[in-house]
Amino acid sequence: MIPRLTDDEIAAVLPGLPGWSLDGDRTGIVRSFKFGTFVEAFGFMTKVALLAEKADHHPEWSNVYNRVEIRLSTHDCGGLSKRDMALAAKIDALLG
Amino acid sequence: MIPRLTDDEIAAVLPGLPGWSLDGDRTGIVRSFKFGTFVEAFGFMTKVALLAEKADHHPEWSNVYNRVEIRLSTHDCGGLSKRDMALAAKIDALLG
Repeated sequence: MIPRLTDDEIAAVLPGLPGWSLDGDRTGIVRSFKFGTFVEAFGFMTKVALLAEKADHHPEWSNVYNRVEIRLSTHDCGGLSKRDMALAAKIDALLG
Repeated sequence: MIPRLTDDEIAAVLPGLPGWSLDGDRTGIVRSFKFGTFVEAFGFMTKVALLAEKADHHPEWSNVYNRVEIRLSTHDCGGLSKRDMALAAKIDALLG
């Protein structure tokens, strides 16, 4: 069982992930990405998919043309865990 | 400008795409797909992405683990065009 982060733990980590924000019910973090083209957006998604599969932790996400929306949450604990924060940091690192 | 399909034209084509249904405001068609794993789901998305880019017609879509939801609509005409029906048929053909 993966422990759910407390509000204090979330508050401590989130400033290190400036592009991400808590969703409405505080059970996930979300970030929107905009690229120049669909090819760039889907290329980014492919990199995220490989990171996610390697981490065995998968996003909820959507894409419309050059835009990608990602939500990270941990089903097992019904909220945010360190897995979400770790994946968010890896996704951010893709952006260089 | 790509012409918008009339209701009669939609009604004539849709029975040939049995997995797809009209969305609420009849400006798009939607289909849900379920796979065994994330790898299968994202593998499918990669194939769809290549079809979409080749057709220069891109889906609105989302993925959660082994599930993929696709909506097709034609922004240029504010509704459904033959491009949506053609892409839907190509997506269905991926499923073999």
